[in-house]
Amino acid sequence: MTSTPPLPPENVFDWLDAEGERRAEAGLSRRMWLRPAQHTELDLAGDDYLGLARDKRVAGAAAAAALRWGAGSTGSRLVTGTTELHAELEHELARFCGAQAALVFSSGFTANLGAVTALSGSEAAIVTDKAVHASLAEGCRLSRGDIAAVAHSTPSAIQHALATRRKPRALVVTESVFSVDGTLAPLGELAGICRAHSAALVVDDAHGFGVLGEGGRGAVHAAGLSSEPDVVTTMTLSNALGSQGGAVVGPRRVIRHLVDTARSFVFDASLAPASAAAALTALQVLKAEPELPAKVINNAGNLAMELKSAGLRVELPEAAVISVQAPTPESATVWAEACAEQGIQVGFSRPPSAPDGVARLRLTARADLSEADIDRAAKVIAATAPR
Amino acid sequence: MTSTPPLPPENVFDWLDAEGERRAEAGLSRRMWLRPAQHTELDLAGDDYLGLARDKRVAGAAAAAALRWGAGSTGSRLVTGTTELHAELEHELARFCGAQAALVFSSGFTANLGAVTALSGSEAAIVTDKAVHASLAEGCRLSRGDIAAVAHSTPSAIQHALATRRKPRALVVTESVFSVDGTLAPLGELAGICRAHSAALVVDDAHGFGVLGEGGRGAVHAAGLSSEPDVVTTMTLSNALGSQGGAVVGPRRVIRHLVDTARSFVFDASLAPASAAAALTALQVLKAEPELPAKVINNAGNLAMELKSAGLRVELPEAAVISVQAPTPESATVWAEACAEQGIQVGFSRPPSAPDGVARLRLTARADLSEADIDRAAKVIAATAPR
Repeated sequence: MTSTPPLPPENVFDWLDAEGERRAEAGLSRRMWLRPAQHTELDLAGDDYLGLARDKRVAGAAAAAALRWGAGSTGSRLVTGTTELHAELEHELARFCGAQAALVFSSGFTANLGAVTALSGSEAAIVTDKAVHASLAEGCRLSRGDIAAVAHSTPSAIQHALATRRKPRALVVTESVFSVDGTLAPLGELAGICRAHSAALVVDDAHGFGVLGEGGRGAVHAAGLSSEPDVVTTMTLSNALGSQGGAVVGPRRVIRHLVDTARSFVFDASLAPASAAAALTALQVLKAEPELPAKVINNAGNLAMELKSAGLRVELPEAAVISVQAPTPESATVWAEACAEQGIQVGFSRPPSAPDGVARLRLTARADLSEADIDRAAKVIAATAPR
Repeated sequence: MTSTPPLPPENVFDWLDAEGERRAEAGLSRRMWLRPAQHTELDLAGDDYLGLARDKRVAGAAAAAALRWGAGSTGSRLVTGTTELHAELEHELARFCGAQAALVFSSGFTANLGAVTALSGSEAAIVTDKAVHASLAEGCRLSRGDIAAVAHSTPSAIQHALATRRKPRALVVTESVFSVDGTLAPLGELAGICRAHSAALVVDDAHGFGVLGEGGRGAVHAAGLSSEPDVVTTMTLSNALGSQGGAVVGPRRVIRHLVDTARSFVFDASLAPASAAAALTALQVLKAEPELPAKVINNAGNLAMELKSAGLRVELPEAAVISVQAPTPESATVWAEACAEQGIQVGFSRPPSAPDGVARLRLTARADLSEADIDRAAKVIAATAPR
């Protein structure tokens, strides 16, 4: 490479522009836009399922914690210590879920990285649903084990990969409620398959926690698995709990192992006190108002029914995420923009981000949606639907 | 694997205990402890170099932002939008550093993952100092390119790896101030080597920003590289800025590319509004009080001099991180514990975490240390030193 003259410095990153043009031509450029402090549009894009991010108790707890504990945590908890906010949040999360222990991370992304890498290793086979979230997929790639990414929602493929693995240990990785299409993994069946093959099960309950199960204890609890010695749950604090951060919940020995070995915990500045306090208060609100999750499910069901009645291709949702199929990738983008112009903010996903190749609108229900909100949203989404 | 009877579920994670016992025997178990809201010990362990984490202006901005914008950001900025806090922070960070643009991540860890993976790819050779932070190392491992991890602070090794690479593109990855031992990378020399080989340079300025350079503009700015078209800077918002989060600062085309392709940005809930506001206010404090960085350097130099006078093995620091060699790995742990018992909180690192195999105390200076603090710290550290 050294015999050719070097590139001028201003050309070193030319390849970025070339790639950017290819993405733009394929309609895959991502766009950032400013949003106001108070929504003027109806938000069906965010994952604030219980409507707690702007709850006065939750935001107030964040504010009080910043004033009392400081704006930041000044380092890794292993270096500068743990606040009682972090410790209490972990204690309460574990108790609520019926697990032995919990560990809080600075984001859901780093929680998933930490859990998957620390619980696998070179002696492990990792078998993952190929539609899992990017953070789980990156965790798999960072592990030093064998990886099998199998067809979405296909327990038989997981069973086959476990049965034919070459490694002594195994870890099965799945989401509970898949973020992209809102479908529910058959957790009971997966746990049975894991047990038949001596495999551990890691479930990302980011879109189940606070929405499914008794009082919002999540999909893993609903499947009767949250106290099991071979099951580990990950979650975000930024969805139902309206804050920032992630957590891993499971057997005490797992949490102890993560404290020692999860690099995205050990070598990361810990979650800001304000975010720990907000998540803790949101959990207390959820415990005090156990009817909130049913409202989310109810609202999601009603919105989906109205969309189905209007002739759209939508499945009745298992949780808060509603997937509406779009005829083509291009039409999904145009559809979402048309909704936004009429005051309804929706998400969308399209290949290659959509792992099954299907383009869709992604709608999320919240506990605090009114009937009028749902009617208006359904009317706009139906009226703007591509032919 | 399937012909043997499956493990009972309660034995699936037995290997964690076995590994934990091995770590305990080697003295490598990590410990968590509760810290109070107000330090009772003198903190020489955290990375709050400017003492801004507990500054009333900074913590007050965090509190106000939580109340105005909510406790969480409810999703990825690509899905739920950008607050003006995030946009202003990015604008001000870029301007302060003399770069075209910036992008804020939810942690320094995810910023480094995002920068290294998005700027490499299968056509790239990554050449990295082997002592870089875990987040950079994980970013290298996640990239699909060739990786050469070369001897710490050895430009000739970087040059050799670039000259003999098999990939058309190349990325050199380094810290500016190495977190572990406080040494400074020869950024000017590295930039020259990069240019001779058409390579881009990614510098993690987590421990230089706010401490080095004109008014704390960082080590990359001090080296005259912050506006260069082939140099990218990463940093944390949790060190000198006293908050949580990370950022990438560099050419506009790089930032645009990260928005489209950095998975730890695209698929991560964005930084909490409180943390964005705290970092923005801390940056304003730094601009208004450009003498703060010199105080850090001065305090670090004075502490190191006192330790050296007491006969300890310490190099005069380049920035805020002071490295004091310990005779053995075991003695580093005992030493740090003895300091803590006498009211001085210090960090320590030991193999295998210390990449050069040297066990050491890691001390950090802050702008708000008094002469009395420094005297007391030096006396305790010297008095507790292993023979």
